[in-house]
Amino acid sequence: MKAINLEKFGSPEVMVYGEAARPVAGPDQVLIKVAATSVNRPDIVQRQGNYAPPEGESPILGLEVAGTVESMGANVSNWCRGDRVMALIGGGGYAEYALAHQHHAMAIPDNMGFEAAACVCETYITAYLNVFMLGGLQDSQRVLLHGGGGGVNTAAIQLCRALVPETEIFVTASTRKLDRVAALGAHRVIDYTQEDFAEVIRESTHRQGVNVILDHIGAAYFERNMKSLSVSGTLMLIGVMGGVRAEVNLALAMVKRQTIMGSVLRSRSIAEKTGIMDAFTRTVIPLMVRGEVVPLISEVLPLQEAARAHQVMESGGHFGKIVLIV
Amino acid sequence: MKAINLEKFGSPEVMVYGEAARPVAGPDQVLIKVAATSVNRPDIVQRQGNYAPPEGESPILGLEVAGTVESMGANVSNWCRGDRVMALIGGGGYAEYALAHQHHAMAIPDNMGFEAAACVCETYITAYLNVFMLGGLQDSQRVLLHGGGGGVNTAAIQLCRALVPETEIFVTASTRKLDRVAALGAHRVIDYTQEDFAEVIRESTHRQGVNVILDHIGAAYFERNMKSLSVSGTLMLIGVMGGVRAEVNLALAMVKRQTIMGSVLRSRSIAEKTGIMDAFTRTVIPLMVRGEVVPLISEVLPLQEAARAHQVMESGGHFGKIVLIV
Repeated sequence: MKAINLEKFGSPEVMVYGEAARPVAGPDQVLIKVAATSVNRPDIVQRQGNYAPPEGESPILGLEVAGTVESMGANVSNWCRGDRVMALIGGGGYAEYALAHQHHAMAIPDNMGFEAAACVCETYITAYLNVFMLGGLQDSQRVLLHGGGGGVNTAAIQLCRALVPETEIFVTASTRKLDRVAALGAHRVIDYTQEDFAEVIRESTHRQGVNVILDHIGAAYFERNMKSLSVSGTLMLIGVMGGVRAEVNLALAMVKRQTIMGSVLRSRSIAEKTGIMDAFTRTVIPLMVRGEVVPLISEVLPLQEAARAHQVMESGGHFGKIVLIV
Repeated sequence: MKAINLEKFGSPEVMVYGEAARPVAGPDQVLIKVAATSVNRPDIVQRQGNYAPPEGESPILGLEVAGTVESMGANVSNWCRGDRVMALIGGGGYAEYALAHQHHAMAIPDNMGFEAAACVCETYITAYLNVFMLGGLQDSQRVLLHGGGGGVNTAAIQLCRALVPETEIFVTASTRKLDRVAALGAHRVIDYTQEDFAEVIRESTHRQGVNVILDHIGAAYFERNMKSLSVSGTLMLIGVMGGVRAEVNLALAMVKRQTIMGSVLRSRSIAEKTGIMDAFTRTVIPLMVRGEVVPLISEVLPLQEAARAHQVMESGGHFGKIVLIV
């Protein structure tokens, strides 16, 4: 099959379109003929050599795909050849065929194309898991989402609007993306190039802070995040783009009963991912079926141009997801 | 009424036995004629001037009492004069009479005396809340409890033995308390004066770490605690006796999906405390009714000797609770 191979670790040019062995479904797996996949930030970190795939996963990049079921393992009873599916995978998405655990694939809603479906499993599930299942955001609270136009962030804004309509949404973004973030439904967009977000949160919330923060920056934002967190608030840490080591004031965290929780999706167990996807299927998929939540696509490129897709993401020029079609 | 008053903030001698105004029950409160109260670490911090009582609470020390209901507010329907109760209170325990919210008092089991009952509400609820309700400890996991012979720690050991009998219990203690901690049922007692607990945990768990840590030390233990925590593990921080500022490696916390949660009981809302006590009543009180969990009392002193009680706690010579009888 055709796939994007890594010649070595490094800049986007190490990704080369070429041949790879077509995988064979294990007993609990489906083989998916990939129609589309999408780019996620961890793909870049993996390409750079800093995020090895979990044991047993394909070394090919790509954490979510949409396509049709090509073949099934012996234990698979819930899928048939030709079914339109979208799947959360531990790797292998940048290819003509990819493997998924049978319980980590979902039927694509009839009203959704492959391009949009390729953005659901890693992106929306990451947003849902961390803001709602782990962060525990409830309606009529306040949430701070960092990272303007990124895939997870735009998904999180949409999910907050749909699931907790009375919750006040603060979003940090760069100057050029402010309007588009506001159009998605954020109540207060903070230009991180001009404003101190902790100061904005402090004033806007009368020093009450926000209940949940979704952060992929890490050290560079840590002190301000902790300042911005309410009593009983939760900081969900899903990335460390802004550094790794931070100082924490344990007395303040204790007295304010705050939680700092690190979270990644990829390394979770099969059973845990299945549970997460069951909750997601009950809660978010109906919104997609009704067209109330529609994945936001910034660009669509052919798989051959994966290197350019990474360049776009690294330049920060995108707003929403970057999709690769096969 | 008689009570322990603070002449100023400072060493134990600032506590003086004298007169104080007898409180009057508000609409949702009961007035308890105190038979016994017990000393908790926050009492010392408050005496030193570093832990102001929440708004509306008595400035008198004391977070848990046992006694009989003396009078009730207009909205109280579940208690009668003379009922034997133990109560979680926001302050005011070192006195002949103390106020409690009607839902923060529990009936004392028939087989339990006032001295033991004075150790249940702050001490056992703190252990239960943080290890089980928030820490999420489950059976057949591993837990690390710091602080040898302290009230919360000995309570936590007992609760782990009773509620999750297959869970492996690691406890740090000083040399002179090792045997008594082991006798309570800890599987591995770590002499913190001789051993590096992180090293012991690493070797004993084949680098898997423990699922929950209950810590009141803070900064001095923070790095070793994080090292000792398993994937998906939770560090419950309930004190900062060993310092406030610590460095956290956010990348490790993220990749290992770890949680750091600060927790105090006193400042939680009435509704939240009521919910916690309901869960405690269902889960732990039956163990006490059956005599399977019995509060461990180190010393019993008259209320007049509160200063000496604090000296005993500060010297670390106690094993279990220090009770003051009125």
